[in-house]
Amino acid sequence: MDALQDRYFPDLPCFGCGPANEKGLRLKSYLGPNGTVVATFMPWPEHDNGVGFLNGGIIATLLDCHSAAAVTHTAYERGWTPLGDALLPYVTAGIDVHYRRPAPLRDEVSLVAGVLSGSEDAIEAEVRLEYDGKVRAEGTALWKRWRPR
Amino acid sequence: MDALQDRYFPDLPCFGCGPANEKGLRLKSYLGPNGTVVATFMPWPEHDNGVGFLNGGIIATLLDCHSAAAVTHTAYERGWTPLGDALLPYVTAGIDVHYRRPAPLRDEVSLVAGVLSGSEDAIEAEVRLEYDGKVRAEGTALWKRWRPR
Repeated sequence: MDALQDRYFPDLPCFGCGPANEKGLRLKSYLGPNGTVVATFMPWPEHDNGVGFLNGGIIATLLDCHSAAAVTHTAYERGWTPLGDALLPYVTAGIDVHYRRPAPLRDEVSLVAGVLSGSEDAIEAEVRLEYDGKVRAEGTALWKRWRPR
Repeated sequence: MDALQDRYFPDLPCFGCGPANEKGLRLKSYLGPNGTVVATFMPWPEHDNGVGFLNGGIIATLLDCHSAAAVTHTAYERGWTPLGDALLPYVTAGIDVHYRRPAPLRDEVSLVAGVLSGSEDAIEAEVRLEYDGKVRAEGTALWKRWRPR
């Protein structure tokens, strides 16, 4: 099965999840069990938080972009496709991140996202980063319908 | 005047603000007016959000790391220096980011942070990213005392 990023926006140059950004993180997310969206990511050596773990900003980037995959998939499933000349159906309005435990810098981490609620105007998703069976960081992302003016 | 990062943690390899991370963003923050901490940052071409503006994850990274400079400065001013073998006095417990307007990818952006409240256990900071006189993103970061076990 194709990654959701390759299915919905193969030409996007997004730093976190754009298949077309050669210098980006190129996150790949897939449909998982029970309506979830899942991914794995191998941190780069420079993604240090300063004390040998995964950087909080990179974690926020992964949570944001992984929630994008879940939200975009839900949007397309419901027929809420991009409007006018917009490249994406929704844009992030905010993300609230909680760092629970250190996440490793030298091992692959896992991501799980699920859509919490959605109307055409706004979709909320919860997303977490896990390692070794424990939540390392989790957040809620709010995405709003992108309506080009 | 030295950047706060160079003053307080010159050897840190943090992706966002570590002076010692050659592949990192190397954010440099300075004391500003009225108790604020200020910085500027020139995005890299790959920091695209996918539609030609600054990526939300990179924005979160900048907000987090810039709040770190403000919090670390306040901590040292109050004598709350790193404990035991900790490299930093505080660690991020969470950051709540609101994206208000698109931020440019091909022009320098500004950051402003201020400490909202602080006890030795936890320090809260507000931080925003501005361009052309308008807030593009803003957030609140909660930092907790790093107590090595």
